[in-house]
Amino acid sequence: MIRLFIPHDLTAGAELALDHGQSHYLASVMRLSAGDELALFNGRDGEWRAVVSVVTKRAVGVRAETLLRPQAPAPDLDLVVALVKRARVETIVEKAAELGARRVRLTLTERTNADHTRLDRLTAIATEAAEQTGRLDVPAIEAPAKLDKLIDGWEAGRRLLFCDEAGDAAPVLEALSTAPAGPWAILIGPEGGFSPKERERLRALPYATPVTLGPRILRADTAAIAALSLWQAALGDWRQS
Amino acid sequence: MIRLFIPHDLTAGAELALDHGQSHYLASVMRLSAGDELALFNGRDGEWRAVVSVVTKRAVGVRAETLLRPQAPAPDLDLVVALVKRARVETIVEKAAELGARRVRLTLTERTNADHTRLDRLTAIATEAAEQTGRLDVPAIEAPAKLDKLIDGWEAGRRLLFCDEAGDAAPVLEALSTAPAGPWAILIGPEGGFSPKERERLRALPYATPVTLGPRILRADTAAIAALSLWQAALGDWRQS
Repeated sequence: MIRLFIPHDLTAGAELALDHGQSHYLASVMRLSAGDELALFNGRDGEWRAVVSVVTKRAVGVRAETLLRPQAPAPDLDLVVALVKRARVETIVEKAAELGARRVRLTLTERTNADHTRLDRLTAIATEAAEQTGRLDVPAIEAPAKLDKLIDGWEAGRRLLFCDEAGDAAPVLEALSTAPAGPWAILIGPEGGFSPKERERLRALPYATPVTLGPRILRADTAAIAALSLWQAALGDWRQS
Repeated sequence: MIRLFIPHDLTAGAELALDHGQSHYLASVMRLSAGDELALFNGRDGEWRAVVSVVTKRAVGVRAETLLRPQAPAPDLDLVVALVKRARVETIVEKAAELGARRVRLTLTERTNADHTRLDRLTAIATEAAEQTGRLDVPAIEAPAKLDKLIDGWEAGRRLLFCDEAGDAAPVLEALSTAPAGPWAILIGPEGGFSPKERERLRALPYATPVTLGPRILRADTAAIAALSLWQAALGDWRQS
């Protein structure tokens, strides 16, 4: 069944006009017509079974019918990742959506060369991945901010899994197996690694857990996917069968 | 330091002529000249420090000087993955090399649409990723074979981590935490999943451990990277710091 993320409130019987892009997708790409079913979610009201109520040249209207799944709290996991090359950032955003990250915060480090990204494009990638993966929300994508600024404004109580490529940190699963649940963030550096000054600051943070992801050099997208998977398996929603 | 995978034997003082592609890369792309250093490995003799000995229009010659790292046994992990779309297969091969798989075996399942791949291109991707990630060998890439045939010829003593998207299997880390070390393979199905008949056969294999990778639907490349990371963290070479 097609799943669409929409901004509208969802209640039984609500008649909703889809925007141009989603109307085109349903009518012209997927060739749905009146009476066909789909699923809708908005990040607040759960997932709803809906039917196409009207198809015109200008727009598609849908009607929410019954609640399929109530909104449930998702793991509170942020991914903080250095702004790497565009294709790798896009992969990271797609995979973060599949792997259940609540938010992707892009960051600029001393060894980050890029400084620009298209947030609208990254949000579209996150939305499409969320629709396909079956989650009930879309991860928020945050504009690039300097690492020092992110640390200065760090939220109290959120732990940080610091993926430290320098190699003398604890094995990741050993660290996660004794770590507390609750809000977490994963930090992935740029391809050139963190500077010595950045590493020193990160290692001194009382809420940071430095870990190593094995003996090989990983690209930023590989490291991000590995760390998200390990966190979900050890502390997140991959624990229940 | 540049790392190159070469077919030649490596011994102290060995003078080696590089092939056209590697010669072009060193001389024209990286602009190395006589006396410059690089690292060489061949999957058998460890990693060697080498120097460029001669640069001509036709070829670059290098001389192996000293052993940097002896050849060490790598985790004995295969990735068996359904032949999905070309771009995703290429991602999977790149990531399998970074994540230390010894071999990638492509397979054709009932719901696999593709049947063709370019093994030379996949081997080039695996080689480049192996050079960059710092491993001492290159994963072998095997031509697509039918799943039934792979199971019929299964090597005695090799366990199988069966990533079962149907969802009633054990959580992956719970299963891996009590699993024996030794030779393993990870099995990732096509985007449409395994057929009921295939699942039945896979679940009945005495050497198979069915696991679930969480509540969301994962693309094949995401599932492969997640499972490789979890295996390395639980049973492979990510355990030592």
